Amino acid sequence: MNQQYSSALLERAVDEFAKLPGIGRKTAMRLVLHTLRLEVGTVDSFCHAIQNLRHEVQYCKVCHNISDTEVCQLCSNPQRDASTVCVVANIQDVMAIEATMQYHGLYHVLGGVISPMDGIAPSDLEIDSLVERVDAGGVKEVILALSSTMEGDTTNFFIYRKLAHNTDVKLTVLARGMSINDELQYTDEMTLGRSLINRVPFTGN
Amino acid sequence: MNQQYSSALLERAVDEFAKLPGIGRKTAMRLVLHTLRLEVGTVDSFCHAIQNLRHEVQYCKVCHNISDTEVCQLCSNPQRDASTVCVVANIQDVMAIEATMQYHGLYHVLGGVISPMDGIAPSDLEIDSLVERVDAGGVKEVILALSSTMEGDTTNFFIYRKLAHNTDVKLTVLARGMSINDELQYTDEMTLGRSLINRVPFTGN
Repeated sequence: MNQQYSSALLERAVDEFAKLPGIGRKTAMRLVLHTLRLEVGTVDSFCHAIQNLRHEVQYCKVCHNISDTEVCQLCSNPQRDASTVCVVANIQDVMAIEATMQYHGLYHVLGGVISPMDGIAPSDLEIDSLVERVDAGGVKEVILALSSTMEGDTTNFFIYRKLAHNTDVKLTVLARGMSINDELQYTDEMTLGRSLINRVPFTGN
Repeated sequence: MNQQYSSALLERAVDEFAKLPGIGRKTAMRLVLHTLRLEVGTVDSFCHAIQNLRHEVQYCKVCHNISDTEVCQLCSNPQRDASTVCVVANIQDVMAIEATMQYHGLYHVLGGVISPMDGIAPSDLEIDSLVERVDAGGVKEVILALSSTMEGDTTNFFIYRKLAHNTDVKLTVLARGMSINDELQYTDEMTLGRSLINRVPFTGN
């Protein structure tokens, strides 16, 4: 035991908290002292929630989003438009798009993007299952909604080639352009150029 | 269930993390997704460490520091000077003083400072037990090591009066003055004034 700590239990709890990303030893200590002031039941329910999630986590067998059931709530919702599939890198992206309330189709969660630097190959991602899903029919549009980075663009292009044999499906990509409330003079030239090329008819809203 | 989350288990885990101080929902989500990538055993040992601490935590019956045993390692260490007792507000203060490696006596953890604003009265703190401990004999010096705030000063004065009947014990307080590496011109006048009044003989180090 580190002589700084008067309790091995305390030290172990601090060690465990400090393993979490973005949490150093000072913050870990603060969190541990906070848990000491909580009721025993509150601490137990915190731990149970985390253990339950880790032990019982499932991924939807259709879209690979995190789910409590074999097929997730989105995929099994008859009110969602099953002919549109939005391809995203991870589950936070699903939440970001759902938060816009502008999308009513389904998703396909890749589990990342192709990144040779990080050793992530196409086979590590849910790309084959996407192709199977599209080839099974019923999908009219696949929206590529990946980050506008080198890796995102590479992944977009890879999927584009993988789906090229299927001429029934329309492949679209998220619009790139100025953000809402951006000042034109401070917009970078790549973005501004893309905004010009992809200009759309003005409809008054 | 909030429609933003595709899993109630996920939502509950995020809710629990977000209850911790200084952790918002975005950070909570990041921590939860991190735990999902960990081995089941790693998550279990994280939770066990926290639950073990909360269930088995003890406070030393002499100094009230957190401890794994009835009397803590510091109080039961014969190499520590039992005639000096350093009064601190909480266990982080013990760790801060231990880290200086300049103190070899024992501690007395009050559990806070007197603060009418926060509803903390002297009876909420381990002040009576301090007086008993000093009156039991064997203590030659009590060092008041509280923060130099209004509440700390109030608590110091309260303890001073409580121990006034015992003329055998020397009561000292931490030196207040310029911090190491402070620029004189930027030191506040209260601190600079105290530094002047409490000037000490120059010994060359």
